[in-house]
Amino acid sequence: MLSEFDLIQQYFQRPQHAARATLGIGDDCALLTPTPGMQTAISSDMLVEGRHFFAGEDAARLGHKALAVNLSDLAAMGARPVGFTLALALPSADRDWLAGFSKGLFALADAYNIELVGGDTTKGPLNICITVFGEVRPGQALRRAAAQPDDDIWISGTLGDARLALAGYRLEQAMDAASLLAAAARLHTPTPRVALGTLLAEQGIARAAIDISDGLVSDLGHILKLSRVGATLDVDALPAGAVLATRETALRRAYTAAGGDDYELCFTAPASARAAVLAAAASVATPVTRVGRIEAAPGLRLVDAAGAALDLQLHGFDHFTS
Amino acid sequence: MLSEFDLIQQYFQRPQHAARATLGIGDDCALLTPTPGMQTAISSDMLVEGRHFFAGEDAARLGHKALAVNLSDLAAMGARPVGFTLALALPSADRDWLAGFSKGLFALADAYNIELVGGDTTKGPLNICITVFGEVRPGQALRRAAAQPDDDIWISGTLGDARLALAGYRLEQAMDAASLLAAAARLHTPTPRVALGTLLAEQGIARAAIDISDGLVSDLGHILKLSRVGATLDVDALPAGAVLATRETALRRAYTAAGGDDYELCFTAPASARAAVLAAAASVATPVTRVGRIEAAPGLRLVDAAGAALDLQLHGFDHFTS
Repeated sequence: MLSEFDLIQQYFQRPQHAARATLGIGDDCALLTPTPGMQTAISSDMLVEGRHFFAGEDAARLGHKALAVNLSDLAAMGARPVGFTLALALPSADRDWLAGFSKGLFALADAYNIELVGGDTTKGPLNICITVFGEVRPGQALRRAAAQPDDDIWISGTLGDARLALAGYRLEQAMDAASLLAAAARLHTPTPRVALGTLLAEQGIARAAIDISDGLVSDLGHILKLSRVGATLDVDALPAGAVLATRETALRRAYTAAGGDDYELCFTAPASARAAVLAAAASVATPVTRVGRIEAAPGLRLVDAAGAALDLQLHGFDHFTS
Repeated sequence: MLSEFDLIQQYFQRPQHAARATLGIGDDCALLTPTPGMQTAISSDMLVEGRHFFAGEDAARLGHKALAVNLSDLAAMGARPVGFTLALALPSADRDWLAGFSKGLFALADAYNIELVGGDTTKGPLNICITVFGEVRPGQALRRAAAQPDDDIWISGTLGDARLALAGYRLEQAMDAASLLAAAARLHTPTPRVALGTLLAEQGIARAAIDISDGLVSDLGHILKLSRVGATLDVDALPAGAVLATRETALRRAYTAAGGDDYELCFTAPASARAAVLAAAASVATPVTRVGRIEAAPGLRLVDAAGAALDLQLHGFDHFTS
């Protein structure tokens, strides 16, 4: 039987990158040497079976997603990823699952040249808790509280396909297999927008940012509340995912505005920075779309392409009330 | 019904300490400003209901223990605690539980003047994942790999009462209520040996250290393996907890040597540092006991008070094989 230490050694311990962790897995703590003058950005996300992913979900995709959603938080702060810890509760030490999970996890970690520096493994209902560390220069972090009236509101990539895939799995929406497969890629293997987020921060282009995990309306709402501003959002300007774009207007509006699980960035920037935003986005090959405007008047006003008010019944995802 | 954001605001968000986190709860990431020249020590521990604590365990004790076991890892590294993240999966948003848990958690956090800087809450089988951050001067960390032949082996506090309490709960040992209560305090509310650990590191007194969570023989084994040394351990010199000390020799030996859940420090120091170890321990009012010696010959030799070999059938706790 696979012991806890064998499990760590076989599936999670890898040769250390000399540059990052001074001391990695295998001691009471990991030791990191901060880059002089930089702040440390920290975020934790916990993924629970049956809540954040289906029971029986492919282990490699899960390894990817667990790290991706955490990297997305760093991206939304404009922080460069450095390393992460992994705490893992597993019903059993299943070799196939561990091989798949660690493969998906490390493929994404390697893409960002970041290291697993420590963590914990235990028996229990499947639960994946990752804490990521990044670095950002003081004053450059993209804070939720930093939006200003007349800022543009921008969205990276496209929205809604992850929610559409969920509707497909739940049989709430009829979908052919090819469409479901295409949409489901957005649900299972989100792309954290790290290159865009760090560039927007380092070049001082964007003001506020958040990553879209609970749905745009809900997540933008955090920016509005903390920045003490309001906004008008052009719902028909929201970039729909490739599969969702073929669906009817009402569904497109609902899922782009409040779908959730998108892991795109919503950020604000002054109107004078439009060319800079587009140039930055092009330089990292990440599409961005301007979708609204921050205003002094509190509240979020949803409008259609003609500027007419839309009364959509939307709500973001809340773990304890939904 | 209590929403996720209300829950965080009501039970976990507190006024920020100006000194530590530049940005705490409520953004995509927390921002910490590292002390110039210091390394960051990081550790994660996950506690699962039914595995690390009984179902129905008192919430305040659980809040204490979840943070204490993490602080114990910092102590074993000789790192000063700075802050922590908390990821929490809860079956429901129960106000009484949350009030108790956060009370126990913050009482310990306040004792060390550390801050909850961020985290995550979700619905799911009860699971508590804390990641702690500390600081240590480069070269001062107490690493498992640093033990040297002829080092003394020291233990802080006493061992075995936590294991005895577990045996009492499981009816493996007959215990009167007063004894069970006394022993159980060690199981439920362990004291992280932060003051001792940081002093031993900062004064350069100790070499290797580990905290005793899986049982001394098992945890000391990690020091021996990583330091490529062996040791002789005087089992009868091991300081037994107040309740265990009244029990028969065989039980005392078994539970002090391999009980687990002690959260005491096991550390090594050169024989020339004996007076310094005792002075450091006295200055932080933490008893320490010399219990053996590191040797060049590999393997761990258990002996009794007369120096005769003991053949105890011991094993530490492993989450996937026990």
